Amino acid sequence: MVSEVFRVVPIGVVESVNELARVRIFPEFCDGLYRLNEFSHAIILYWFHKRDSQEERRVLRVVPKRHLAKQEVGVFASRSPSRPNPIGLCAVRLVKVEDCILIVEGLDALEGSPVVDVKPYLPRADFVPDVMVPDWTSHGRPA
Amino acid sequence: MVSEVFRVVPIGVVESVNELARVRIFPEFCDGLYRLNEFSHAIILYWFHKRDSQEERRVLRVVPKRHLAKQEVGVFASRSPSRPNPIGLCAVRLVKVEDCILIVEGLDALEGSPVVDVKPYLPRADFVPDVMVPDWTSHGRPA
Repeated sequence: MVSEVFRVVPIGVVESVNELARVRIFPEFCDGLYRLNEFSHAIILYWFHKRDSQEERRVLRVVPKRHLAKQEVGVFASRSPSRPNPIGLCAVRLVKVEDCILIVEGLDALEGSPVVDVKPYLPRADFVPDVMVPDWTSHGRPA
Repeated sequence: MVSEVFRVVPIGVVESVNELARVRIFPEFCDGLYRLNEFSHAIILYWFHKRDSQEERRVLRVVPKRHLAKQEVGVFASRSPSRPNPIGLCAVRLVKVEDCILIVEGLDALEGSPVVDVKPYLPRADFVPDVMVPDWTSHGRPA
């Protein structure tokens, strides 16, 4: 199992990132967006393409930059882009879904990031109340 | 960009699924779990290994089985395991993190599913209030 490798293909790309981000889904995958416009939010999986190197994938501990307390933690206890599989995850608000373009709010990706999946945000599954996180996850700057 | 392919390596495996699920992280990635035990919840990304075929990856519309209303929707408007990149996503409660083993509640994966990433559930990013979903996402059986 360890030696098995899975293939991920880009289904789209983050075209611009400002207050809102613009995601273009490639024409061959565009039909998969059918009825996504009925949801207010989605989860976007993207690729940390700037961190996809053997070296960055070997990183298992990091000191998260955005946190107030500078403490070393495991990559699986962080959202660091340096990790064995450089998959990014963001819950976003769907501002507009039109043809193959998504306009979204809250996408913490770089311009040019490949998009690898889009899933509807389902409160039943994704909205978890009473979550506890350690103090060191507090942001040193506005979230 | 369309022709580029990214590599995903399994970092662990879902060993058993009952009321609680048992996830084993492989020894070479285990150090990445450092301080995950300080979080109450995590997001687990896993591989829909039973759906990783050219045919299943070509599916762009589905009729979600678990929903009350049988309606066709795009795969990106559903959590269907048949999708261009068969990546599964579950928010889980961390019951126990010990050495390389996670005991979790709420993992909707099959026994034997490869695990490809673990991220802490951060309310600041993942807990989205005021989400709207269409009526057809209602479950026909208890969620």
